[in-house]
Amino acid sequence: MKKTMDSRTFKDNVLMELFLNFDFRAYRETRRGLVERHLAEMWLDSQRLPSSPVFCAMRHSLMAGGKRLRPILVIAGAEACGGNINELTLSFACAIEMIHTYSLIHDDLPAMDNDDLRRGMPTCHKEFGEAMAILAGDGLLTYAFEYVTSPAILQEQSPSALANILAAICLLSNAAGVYGMVGGQAADILFENKDTDKATLDFIHLNKTTRLISASVEIGAMLAGASEAKRIALKNYGTALGLAFQIKDDILDEEGDPAVMGKPKGSDKRLEKTTYPKLYGMEASKARLNELVEGAISYLDIFDHTAEPLRAIASYVMTRNK
Amino acid sequence: MKKTMDSRTFKDNVLMELFLNFDFRAYRETRRGLVERHLAEMWLDSQRLPSSPVFCAMRHSLMAGGKRLRPILVIAGAEACGGNINELTLSFACAIEMIHTYSLIHDDLPAMDNDDLRRGMPTCHKEFGEAMAILAGDGLLTYAFEYVTSPAILQEQSPSALANILAAICLLSNAAGVYGMVGGQAADILFENKDTDKATLDFIHLNKTTRLISASVEIGAMLAGASEAKRIALKNYGTALGLAFQIKDDILDEEGDPAVMGKPKGSDKRLEKTTYPKLYGMEASKARLNELVEGAISYLDIFDHTAEPLRAIASYVMTRNK
Repeated sequence: MKKTMDSRTFKDNVLMELFLNFDFRAYRETRRGLVERHLAEMWLDSQRLPSSPVFCAMRHSLMAGGKRLRPILVIAGAEACGGNINELTLSFACAIEMIHTYSLIHDDLPAMDNDDLRRGMPTCHKEFGEAMAILAGDGLLTYAFEYVTSPAILQEQSPSALANILAAICLLSNAAGVYGMVGGQAADILFENKDTDKATLDFIHLNKTTRLISASVEIGAMLAGASEAKRIALKNYGTALGLAFQIKDDILDEEGDPAVMGKPKGSDKRLEKTTYPKLYGMEASKARLNELVEGAISYLDIFDHTAEPLRAIASYVMTRNK
Repeated sequence: MKKTMDSRTFKDNVLMELFLNFDFRAYRETRRGLVERHLAEMWLDSQRLPSSPVFCAMRHSLMAGGKRLRPILVIAGAEACGGNINELTLSFACAIEMIHTYSLIHDDLPAMDNDDLRRGMPTCHKEFGEAMAILAGDGLLTYAFEYVTSPAILQEQSPSALANILAAICLLSNAAGVYGMVGGQAADILFENKDTDKATLDFIHLNKTTRLISASVEIGAMLAGASEAKRIALKNYGTALGLAFQIKDDILDEEGDPAVMGKPKGSDKRLEKTTYPKLYGMEASKARLNELVEGAISYLDIFDHTAEPLRAIASYVMTRNK
């Protein structure tokens, strides 16, 4: 059911929806606020522990702002399927942000991308040293699974909800692990300074970024008890969105404003990483980005106005400047 | 219900049980074989992926032998509570070994303990480089959670079994995370080259090693649907056993045979880590080890012969030479 629109009509439609029908900024900020508050409330009894610096390192990276795209996708996925914003949905939203943050901490390490700045702040290892940064990443990854299985979350869940939670944990760990994000990061590192063909670049993009983005929106659907058709539509939406997100990242790395992005541009070039613009050219990259966002939105055709936030997010991914 | 025996009587009792009533070696080797086969069967479809080196790195460390103490404790804990050795128990047994292995890989990194040898083999980063070692650890930790929630494991589980699995995941991630093993490792690193008091040493030992060992046997009980009394008895057994294990480790680091252990001795001293013998003296350390093992066994008084393997494991922890 792919729409055939030229990019002008498509953009006009999206803009119309944004400005006439739906206040995306308000939607995003209320959800982001919920996520921020949940994340901020987590760290209480660590002050007097001999291990307290590792908590500080976790907090430093987790509370450094950021778009909170993945947790908002969990919530928007649930809402598109008629679900409420409840503690269960928020716990997975926060868990996915913890996993995303751990991946940034480990990716920034000297043995990996060796980055000094992230979101305009010193990276975790720059602030707390390598050992604490490795452990802060390990701690965030592990805590994500504790957070979604805490007694407070599980009490009063029905048997079918328990089964949904276990399926969501399975999907999350698969998407984040060696068959997903970790595998993508490994390939990204392994192919630095090497000729990378299109199949390998696809593998890296699909796994390093896309799997966790797609899992976010699919998990939202699962937790809301969505039908198979809606869950698969959102999974496909998420895959197109995730690829679009990564291609936009590659474009911003060449064309973005370092002051807005909080990091120097051209870091992919510095590491001799293959990017979408490098392999396909800038014009083809922008066309592909447009096509993917259009495709993502077309997967939402089976939804009514409940999917409006997801449509707006797709538009945001295309137009974002950081 | 702590027994009051002098160490001679206690040791005689344990030896009698070992040699007359129960073939511990046969018990241990059959369980170890089951775990090894399960672990070996996991890695199939990775050969042609661009990320295949990270799978090799995971396999290198996971299949390097080792005592498999933690998975055997999961199984022995389940059996003590009347449970069978089934796919569910084995999946958690293997998952805990993956988490233990990831912790060794990350602990060995240059930014942490900077070890070149582990079980007589090059450590993961020595063989595959730091980036792949970090990612192999991340992959093992994440895969542990995927492994215990795979559809093959979850199918045909009753609602109460699903609730037990979720509670086991919560315990496992708590014991492995920043409130457990990761926190203990952080404190261990933070107090290198520093005066460490007894409270801090207790914190390090309790969290770095003991929590995961205790969780192993408690998870066995949970999966077998044990009564609260039996679960708590096994949790206490595991805590005493875990502390005993760590004190024995400290003793072996000073007195052990490097050829048997597969690593040089005195590595704690090299890193200026505080150990139990350093803070309490060797004689007091051996007395404490003995007392802990005796205590661990006394927690098993409410069990009949089904806990014989756990009694034998406690004895093994005291007498092991690697």
